[in-house]
Parts: sequence; structure tokens; C-alpha cells
Amino acid sequence: MNKQLINIPKSLLCNCIDECFANKPAEDGYKLWLRYAPLPLETIDALKPRIRGLMSGAMSQTLSIACTELERGLSSMLLDEFACVSTTVPFDGAILFGTAKDHPLIAEQRLLLEPLGKEGYLIKSVEIDDASVTLIVGNDDMGVLYGCFAFLRMVQSGMDISQLHLASVPKLDLRMLNHWDNLDGSVERGYAGSSIWDWWTLPDYQDPRYADYARANASIGINGTVLNNVNASPMILNGDYLKKAAKLADIFRPFGIKVFLAVNFATPCVLDGLETADPMDALVRQWWKDKVAEIYKLIPDFGGFLVKANSEGQPGPGDYDRSHADGANMIAEALAPHDGILIWRAFVYASDPGTDRATEAYDEFKPLDGAFLPNIMLQVKNGPIDFQPREPFSPIFGQITETPVVLEFQVTKEYLGQATHLVYLGKAFEEVLRFDTYADGEGSTVARIIQGEIFPQRFTGMAAVSNIGNGRDWTGGIFNQANWYAFGRLAWNPELNSEDIAREWVRLTFCSDEAFVEPVVEMMMSSHETLVDYMTPFGLHHQMATGHHYGPGPWIDDLKRPEWNPSYYNQADEAGIGFDRTDRGSGAIRQYAPELWGLFGDKHGFDEKYLLWFHHVAWDFKMKSGKSLWDSLVIRYDTGISNVEVMQSTWQELKGYVDCRRFAQIEAYLAIQLREAKWWRDACIAYFMEVSGLPLPEGHEKPGHTLDYYKSLNHPFAPGNPE
Amino acid sequence: MNKQLINIPKSLLCNCIDECFANKPAEDGYKLWLRYAPLPLETIDALKPRIRGLMSGAMSQTLSIACTELERGLSSMLLDEFACVSTTVPFDGAILFGTAKDHPLIAEQRLLLEPLGKEGYLIKSVEIDDASVTLIVGNDDMGVLYGCFAFLRMVQSGMDISQLHLASVPKLDLRMLNHWDNLDGSVERGYAGSSIWDWWTLPDYQDPRYADYARANASIGINGTVLNNVNASPMILNGDYLKKAAKLADIFRPFGIKVFLAVNFATPCVLDGLETADPMDALVRQWWKDKVAEIYKLIPDFGGFLVKANSEGQPGPGDYDRSHADGANMIAEALAPHDGILIWRAFVYASDPGTDRATEAYDEFKPLDGAFLPNIMLQVKNGPIDFQPREPFSPIFGQITETPVVLEFQVTKEYLGQATHLVYLGKAFEEVLRFDTYADGEGSTVARIIQGEIFPQRFTGMAAVSNIGNGRDWTGGIFNQANWYAFGRLAWNPELNSEDIAREWVRLTFCSDEAFVEPVVEMMMSSHETLVDYMTPFGLHHQMATGHHYGPGPWIDDLKRPEWNPSYYNQADEAGIGFDRTDRGSGAIRQYAPELWGLFGDKHGFDEKYLLWFHHVAWDFKMKSGKSLWDSLVIRYDTGISNVEVMQSTWQELKGYVDCRRFAQIEAYLAIQLREAKWWRDACIAYFMEVSGLPLPEGHEKPGHTLDYYKSLNHPFAPGNPE
Repeated sequence: MNKQLINIPKSLLCNCIDECFANKPAEDGYKLWLRYAPLPLETIDALKPRIRGLMSGAMSQTLSIACTELERGLSSMLLDEFACVSTTVPFDGAILFGTAKDHPLIAEQRLLLEPLGKEGYLIKSVEIDDASVTLIVGNDDMGVLYGCFAFLRMVQSGMDISQLHLASVPKLDLRMLNHWDNLDGSVERGYAGSSIWDWWTLPDYQDPRYADYARANASIGINGTVLNNVNASPMILNGDYLKKAAKLADIFRPFGIKVFLAVNFATPCVLDGLETADPMDALVRQWWKDKVAEIYKLIPDFGGFLVKANSEGQPGPGDYDRSHADGANMIAEALAPHDGILIWRAFVYASDPGTDRATEAYDEFKPLDGAFLPNIMLQVKNGPIDFQPREPFSPIFGQITETPVVLEFQVTKEYLGQATHLVYLGKAFEEVLRFDTYADGEGSTVARIIQGEIFPQRFTGMAAVSNIGNGRDWTGGIFNQANWYAFGRLAWNPELNSEDIAREWVRLTFCSDEAFVEPVVEMMMSSHETLVDYMTPFGLHHQMATGHHYGPGPWIDDLKRPEWNPSYYNQADEAGIGFDRTDRGSGAIRQYAPELWGLFGDKHGFDEKYLLWFHHVAWDFKMKSGKSLWDSLVIRYDTGISNVEVMQSTWQELKGYVDCRRFAQIEAYLAIQLREAKWWRDACIAYFMEVSGLPLPEGHEKPGHTLDYYKSLNHPFAPGNPE
Repeated sequence: MNKQLINIPKSLLCNCIDECFANKPAEDGYKLWLRYAPLPLETIDALKPRIRGLMSGAMSQTLSIACTELERGLSSMLLDEFACVSTTVPFDGAILFGTAKDHPLIAEQRLLLEPLGKEGYLIKSVEIDDASVTLIVGNDDMGVLYGCFAFLRMVQSGMDISQLHLASVPKLDLRMLNHWDNLDGSVERGYAGSSIWDWWTLPDYQDPRYADYARANASIGINGTVLNNVNASPMILNGDYLKKAAKLADIFRPFGIKVFLAVNFATPCVLDGLETADPMDALVRQWWKDKVAEIYKLIPDFGGFLVKANSEGQPGPGDYDRSHADGANMIAEALAPHDGILIWRAFVYASDPGTDRATEAYDEFKPLDGAFLPNIMLQVKNGPIDFQPREPFSPIFGQITETPVVLEFQVTKEYLGQATHLVYLGKAFEEVLRFDTYADGEGSTVARIIQGEIFPQRFTGMAAVSNIGNGRDWTGGIFNQANWYAFGRLAWNPELNSEDIAREWVRLTFCSDEAFVEPVVEMMMSSHETLVDYMTPFGLHHQMATGHHYGPGPWIDDLKRPEWNPSYYNQADEAGIGFDRTDRGSGAIRQYAPELWGLFGDKHGFDEKYLLWFHHVAWDFKMKSGKSLWDSLVIRYDTGISNVEVMQSTWQELKGYVDCRRFAQIEAYLAIQLREAKWWRDACIAYFMEVSGLPLPEGHEKPGHTLDYYKSLNHPFAPGNPE
């Protein structure tokens, strides 16, 4: 056994023995985008005159976090030692951070700070008594902390900081992660290990990772977190678990992050034996008031609840013939005296199995618009189905006008290749945000809707289903970190450009060398389209296998409910393929603004990316390219695969720029992605060939196996699958 | 929200901001006992003349791991740079490592290496041409690697290395971890996160942690690992999973670790649709032969199988009215041509519900002794029940004489406070190993039995149920690392002293300052007795609550099978308490050697630590102290608690010696332990008071709550609980 010389991959050994090529120490991804890697010496030389010391005044907990962050970040990037000094004597190259009331020099500047509002910041180069000083200021401590993180981003990116004048204000009030974490430590749709919350040892033991989590979120402006799964265990509201949640809230507080909990509508019955959870029952109403009061004693700044009701088996007011508004109002009433908010999810379907699933949320909630109490927000998934690789926007955006609407994205890639596929979601999020709803004429983009620019909202917000787990790199893969990052940045400002965000992330996560940055950004920017191509081109959706949603299953047609079947969504038959949502079909397009009816209803007119979402189309339908739909479909699948191959070769060429450990992970993941892309292509083409009876267009390879083979595959231990 | 100054524990902030008191950088425990912390300068000065450079010859993969380890370890500990040089010119202060055939200077020494056998090593200070050289040699590469790790341990401990002459040979062939890891990533009885095996991304992606795992095991001599749960999924033998296992085997191979798999007896039916798994069926026999051949193609040095059959619901030969020997022999026959071994677990019970569970494994296997093929080993838990805080040894040790017996310990603390209680198991393991079985007269200790010294064994071995998970510190707590370490060291040499091992571990894991080492070793050495005191004193056993085994449940009497109930084991009634295993009771003591019958059978004679294991004793029974059993029992519980308090204050006094992060974890865990110790004490006393009708002895506090309160507690999300 001893003498066998079987190859160990170099990547592995080099981690194991701390040796890396290119003299780059192996990194495990734990530091995320806050690596504070030393800058090139010429950049240091250029920055140094402007960054000679840190000045501050009085220190709150939040400002002392800002101080530490600046000390740590600048010391590491500029290879020098920085320490905050409490002084009122200006000096050249000082970075002065705080609020106007913390420091007289800030107050003396008479800056126009009012527009910064809550949480906004101003970074400004000024001269004070002949000294060049960089101010990082806000109206409140969180604004200052956000400004410090922004300043550190600029330094890490090697930007010129000599003439700064940058004000930034978050455009949404609530920028929130939703953890689908169960109390047993499993994570629904989690592909990065188990939950980072060790409920079992909380509140006694506080894993240092909790603070690292808060810091990472604060660095990108996230200010709320729902700790537990929307398929909520009633136990989360048990006194023991509330103490655990309160401990997390204590840790997160100085980082500006409020704790929310997902709650189960039937909790009064399950936890305390009430006979009903009927929202009109006086005992039930009192139960919620008492429970909320108990929570606010433990967590004075508790954010509120998130509720998934009467959806996918969850209990809800419908169990008692009450409306969503009845249920929501009862809980919101309990929260209101404490300034808590209730976020009610609009993700419902199957109330009537005969209808198009895409129409159901709108049908259910549109009539209730206006019936909700003022501290209620409606949380709406970006599309009308369920986080598919591509969906048009949900018609609720723009059509629900009297209830604040929170946009819900999914950062964890349940339907997008899960942990291993390289898919930059910033691009996909941007596509949704820039979609024009025409709700109040042209320019009524989803981004403007959720900012309350079209219809005023008392609160605004954006939420994302988290991809965070206890894996060392947090997200089960380095590139998945970019999706957490992009969500945070877009929640701060939904108008940001996804390519700029990608570029920023690459610089912080790897390095600022353009020869590396640009190819990687290009790879990221095309990655979403690539996935759509090999998975669900031209508006196809929900073609994933059952339960775990891993891999293709377009043939599946035997599940209990029609809308659980991929075949329900592809509607593929001898004649054609696609879901008819025009007036000839489900009529779903009528849920959108009239300006869109003609566009979505015309199979020749609109973007072919959405063709099969809205239309059942003949196989020989002539696409804009002049080719038939069938030929075009096959071409798309193959384009997807060749684009993954391009990513692979791009990555190989970048070998010298990345430490061996992260390089090897991405290399291995791309190999998995390529294999699975081919599996998707082959399985889908095999099925559609059988259904259509059509031969492959010339020059395209036959699937590697028979359709029966693809049907026979099963994956009993696929991760992230709920019970 | 921003201005609230709610306290964050200092420990947390100091991690978060990289600041620690005593200038010790925060450590997260990932490095285990291989930290290679820089030595005090005076120690470095003393060692330097003897450690000036590294010499080697030809390099295999294993030797190049040894080289890297020496380079890394010495460079870090001695604050200098060390690199292996391939030279034959001796120099003063050289560390020369290799086998005689790798290096002429080693060959020239004409060392008596034969006694080192396989895997053994010799570390010897010699003079070669007036140069003082330290040799680290073995007959094989693994011996050399083990020697290098031993040498590094000596250096880290600050030992004098000027006149070394140390030979060490493993006393057991197989030193093996058993992972109870499921293919879905959960770990049965795991309290350190989820499985470190990411089955999902294997074999494509090799988490660098796999090599770190192998390295840690090699450093303490562990040379085998069973990757999956003994409650085995048949899927582990599916081709996909075999490829995954093969990849792990490739990584582990140069570290001297062989891969084994736990298999489900019904696999031929489940995986390939055979109609039976009857070991006498020709198709079944062929199936196993084919499957084994398939495995050896992928893993040429595959270790073999571990089987749990006809135990706790697992399938087995008994399902076909065949004996354990019939089942084992069938599989062993398939393994034999490949030199694979079959390890068959003796953990069976409930074959006859009327009997004493403690007698069942012996009853089942004793008649089969001699009926097993030569490549079969019987794996036997240390005690006759199930890894209780304290058990006498299993009567199989010494009574099964013709079948090689592997001793199975449990390193994960299923019944011993799980992740958080500080319990050093080295002491408990030693107690088992030194127990005299009298199987061949006095001195027939369990340690000698398993070494084959009393009855020859073709193979010898020791196994441990692992406590490893994907948590950052591997074991869900720093002190749990000591139990992995102690197991490895005792498996190498079962005669080692557990206190020496504790001292060695403390030096490697924290520091060598005697003012720190001695109090910590003392704390560790008393910790096991402390747990026994507050949990199950005087031989009580299996008083844990159902399923998860977390917390006390002595009152439980309503489970389906009698031997699942704590009340079955305590037999507490108005008259007394304890399980009568004398001739008046189950007669279990007759399974031991006759020399023990009198000892175990006399309630006045033997160690009171085992009293209630063997006897049902009246509450007013007079103990050796002169006090009644009841009073003594209460005193024991209270002693347990006060000893946890002593651990707490000891730890507080050691604050300056440990980095803040590890300090804080242990501090928090001790607080949990104290609270849970009180819970154990209070709940057990409340129950026994009710049963006995006796008042508390004077000066002892009443339980904090009523018995009903303790009975009402439940813990639905307790970790490690199997489905």
C-alpha cells in the first residue's frame, strides 16, 4: 500500500502542504469579498498621501466596528499600520469618519447631509486648514459604516481617491435575506452545507461566524434577515428558540441588521394547544398579541414576521374560510404597536387546479389590494411561477398598487444548477428589474415599482432566498458568493448595472489586474444566458426533475397535481411546444398592463427569449433567424454547451492569477457543469425528438443515450430537498 | 436601532475584529494538534543545534508528505526556514529521514530495523563522520511518516532531542475510524455539523479538507476508515458511489489510510432486484463476488466491509434463518481473493426479548466461535450494552477465542453530553483496556486480548465511532479533539497511559507552559468520573431520554421493547435500585471468566463504581463509606456538579494562556455543561425520590422543579438523532 504512486491532484497537495504556484497563498473563500489583499506597490504609493491616518470622535458600537474595519482593511491593503485616533486637529491624509455630532470638524464643514436620510453616506475630499482630508459621514452611524465599506471597496479596486465626492443613499428600506433554514440544521434548497445557525448551542455559545455573517452583510448594505424557513416550524416561537433568536439579534444589531422570523400560521394550535388558528377567534388574536409582546421584550428592535400561508401545504387563514387579508391583518395588528411589520408571501398556487399556475397569485391577491393593514408588505417572487432560469416578471408588480410590494429573488440556485454551475445572477436580477410593466405608462420598470416611484409605498424592500450555509466558503462555491454580493448591491440600488457589480466583485474577490478581470466579467455576464440555453431555452420553464429539481425531467407527467409536472409546462406534443398564455390559452397575459397584451400575445413580435412561456408554437414555426423552432431549439442547447466549454478554456488561461485552491474548485465545478449541461441537452432533445417525431438537424450530435436511460436516472440523496 | 449599546460579548468582538488579549491570535481549531506554534525563544535556541536541516533520499508520495510536514512544522515552530535536501554528505544538525533503501547513510548505519516490522519507526541520534544526525527511519514509508510526526510532537512539546533512541511499533494492525455518516450528509450521533464527505460533488471536486483529514489521522497512526454509517444505505455499493469512494481512497492512500465501506446485507435485493439476500443462494453469492471484484478494480487496496446485520432493524442472514457465520462467510469468501477483510459487528440484541440485553451478543456469537472464515473479524463494543458512560467490559473479550476481535469505542459522545460536555475519553478507554478479563488467568487485560497476546489473532484492531463533522474545529468543540487524538494513540499502543496522552495533547493543542498544562490535564483526567457522577453514578446505565439520548429520562417505561426503557435498566422500586445480573437475576456474570463470578457477584466486594450494574440494591444498603446507598447516590450527583464548577473556575484562571476564541468556546460549553449536569441531577433525584419515597439527606438541595416538569421537557431538534 505504501509504495503505490497514484496521482494526487496537484491542487489538493498544494493545499495540503501550503504550496501554491505563482506564490499566491491558498485561500478557502471564507473572507468573501472582504479579503483586503495587499495592493500592488505602485497603487500603494499612489494612495498613501491620501491615506495617512484615521480620525474619529465619539464611538458607538457601530462606529467602533467601522473603525476596526478601516484599521484592518487599510493596514492589510496598504501594508502599513493604521489605528483610529480621536483628535480634532486635522492632518494631511486623514480619513475622518463619523456623524456631525460625533466630531466638530465634521460639523464645521456644514455639509448638506439631509439628503442622505437614514443609512446614506457621503464620501468627500476636503481641505481643512490646508490639510487634505477624506470625510466619510452620514446622518447616523449605519450610514458611516456603509460609507467606510464603500471607501474600502474603492481602495481595494485601486481607484483614484484624491477628489472624491460621492453620496449614496439606499433606495429601498428593507434589504433582506431569507434563510430557508430548518431548526434541525438542514437548509431547504441549501447547497452549501448545513445551516450556519447552531440552534442547539445558542444562546449560550456564540459561534464567531455569526458576527462574520453580519459584517459581510453590512458591507453590502443588507439590513434584515429572516432566520428560518418560510415552511416554518411552530417551534421557532417557543420561548427557548426566541432566546436563541434574541442572541443573534444582539450580535447583528451594531451591524445594522434586524432579525425577522418566519412563522407558521397554526402556531397557536401546535405550540399552545388552542383549538383553532382562525384569525377571527378572540383567543387566537390575543395569543398573537401576547406572543409578539414576549418577542419584543427579548428583541426590542425585532423586525417582524414573514408568513407563507395556504401555500404548498402550509396552514393559513383559508383553512377557516378566511382571506389572506384576514389572516395577515390579525398578525399585523399584533405587531403594529411595536412598529413591527408583517411580510406576507404572495407565493400561492393550486387554489384551483384547473387554472394556469402562473395566474394564481395575481388572482388571489389582486382582489385583496387595499384590504391590508398599513404595516403589511406583500412579498412577491420575481416571476409568476417559481424562480425559473428565466421568467417574465410577476404581474403583481404594477397591478397591486395599494399594498407595499417586496420583490423576492432566489440567490440559492435551486433551479439553476445548484452549487456547481457558474451562473452570475446579477444579470438575471437586472433583467427583472428593468422589465417595463407599463403599469403607469412606459418606463414603469419593476425597479421603479418596488422603489415606490410609480405607486407610493410606505415601506420598500427587496428580499432574497439565501445561499449561505456552513461550508467554508459560505455559499458552496466561490462564484456563488457573487450572487449574494450582487443581491446586496442591487437591493441598495436597483438601478445599478450588473456588469459594474460583477467587475467590482471580481476585483475584491480575486484581483484588479484587467487581464484577469475582463475575461472573468465576460464569463459571468454571459453565464446566465448560457445556462438558459442548455436548460430551458426560448421561455421553457420548470423542466427539472421532481422534488430536488436536479437535472432534467421534461417527460414527467404522473405527479399528483398537474402543475407539478414538467410536461404541464412544456405542453410538448406532435404539433408543437410551449404554454399558451394568450387568449387562446390561459389568458394570463391579460394580468399585465394593456400595453403588454399585444407584445406578449404576438409570437412574432416579442423577444424570442420568452416565446414558449407565452405561446404554444409549431415545431416548424419560423423564427427570426429564418430557422424552424425545432432547429433553433437544438442550436440553443448546443450553444449552451459550447459556451460552457468557452468558460472552461477561459478559466484555464487565467491559471496564474488565482491561488491554487480556489482555481481548482472552479475548474472542477466547470467540469461538472459541462457534464450536466450535456445531460440537460441530451435528455431534453431525446424527449422532444420522441414527442415531435422529428430528426436532429444536420450537424448536431445524437443524445449519448436513449430516452429510457435518462428517464431511469434518479438521485435519492440530492441536496437541499425538503422532506 | 443604531445607537443601542447592547453588549456584545468581548470574545465575539475580538474574533470579529482580530483582536485578542495576551497577544494570542484567535484560533478556530481547524489545525487540531498540528498547529506547530512557534516555540519559546529559549527552547528554539536549545533545539537549533540539533535541527539545522533536513536530509532525504528518493521520494515516494508518502515520503514527500513527510518532507512537507517536517518543512512546515519545523519552519513554523523554530521560526526559520527548513527545506529537504537530497544529499549524502552528513552535516551537523541534520534530520535524516527515509528507509534504508532510500538513503545510503541510513543503510550504512546497520540499524536493527527488523523489529520495527510494518509501519514502525526508529528515531535515533547518531554521529556520522563527526556530524550529529537525527535519524527517522522505518522499514517502509509509512513507518518513516509516523516517525516524522512523532518527532514533530517531541519538538512541539519542547523535549530534549539530543540523545534520542526511540523505537515504536504499532501494537494493532488495524487502527480505524468508523464514520456513521449517511449519504445525505447527515451524521448519526454527529454533533459537529454534517458529514465531511461531500458525496454530491465527489469524485469531480476534491475538497482540500479530505487531505487534511488524512493528514490528521496519519499523524496519530490511524490507518483505516469506514466512510459510511453502519446503518448502511445500499446505495453506497452503487457504481457512482464507488467512484466517489475510490477518489477518497486515492487521496488517503499516501497517508497510509485504507478505505472500508459499511454495507447493507440486503444490498443485492435493493440495488439489483435480486429476490433474496439469502447467503446460501448461488445468485446472491455470485452477486457479492462480482461486486467485490468491481470495487477492487476501482480501489486496488480496498480494506473491506463492515457489516451490522440483524441488529436494530438492519437486514441480515437471520432473515433467512441463517446464522451470522453463514452471512459473514459468504461475504468474506468474496473478499478473500483480494485480501479484503470482513468486519462483522457483534452489536446485536433483542433476539429474545425476555433476556437481559447485556447477555445477548455473547449468547449469539459464542456458539459461532470457530465458524468464521479466516478473513473475518468480529467488532465488539467495549461494554455489553451500548457506549454508556461506564460499563464493565463486554464478556466477548476473552471468551471468543478463535475469531479475531476488534474493540469498538465511541469517540462521539452520544451518551456523554454530546458536543458540549468536557469529557476526556482517554481515561475511560484506559479503564476498559486495563480491565482484567481473567480469560487466561490474572493479567488477561482487554488490551492484551485485542493484541492477540492471550489468544493469537491473525489480525488485530481497534475501531472508534468518529466524532468528526464539517464544523470548523472538526469535532464540535476543542476538547472533543482530544478524544480523537487519544483513540489514535491508544490504537497505536493500547498500553499507553491516558494521562501522558492528555498531557501530550494539551501541549500540542495549546502550549507547553506547565502552569497551564497541569491544571488542564487534571481537569481532563477527572472529567470522565465527573460526568459519571452527575449522569449515572454507581453503575447506573442507559438513563438517557429516548432517541436522541440527550438529557435524563429515568422514568421512561412505555417504549415498545422493554430494553429500550431507562426504567428497565435502573429497575428502581420502593425497595431499591439496580439491575441484578447475579444468579438471582439475569445471571449475566456467568458469561465472564469464573475468577470474576465471585467479584462481580458480591455487592460488598467489588468496586462500587459498578454496583448497580450487577446488583439490585436496597436504598438503605450500607456503602463502604458507611452511608446508605440513597445518601451516597445523592452525594455522587452533587459531587458531579461541584466538580463541573471546579472545571469552570480552573478554566477562568487559565484565561491568559489561550487565545480568546478557543477560550470563549470552552467557557460557554462549561456553562452549558453545568446547567445540564444540574438538570441530570435534579431530574434523576426527583424521580428516585418519588420511587423510593425517601427524603433528601440533610444539606442537599431539592430539585429545582417538580418531576412532572422534567418529564414534560422534549427536544424535537436534538442533533445526531437518526430518522
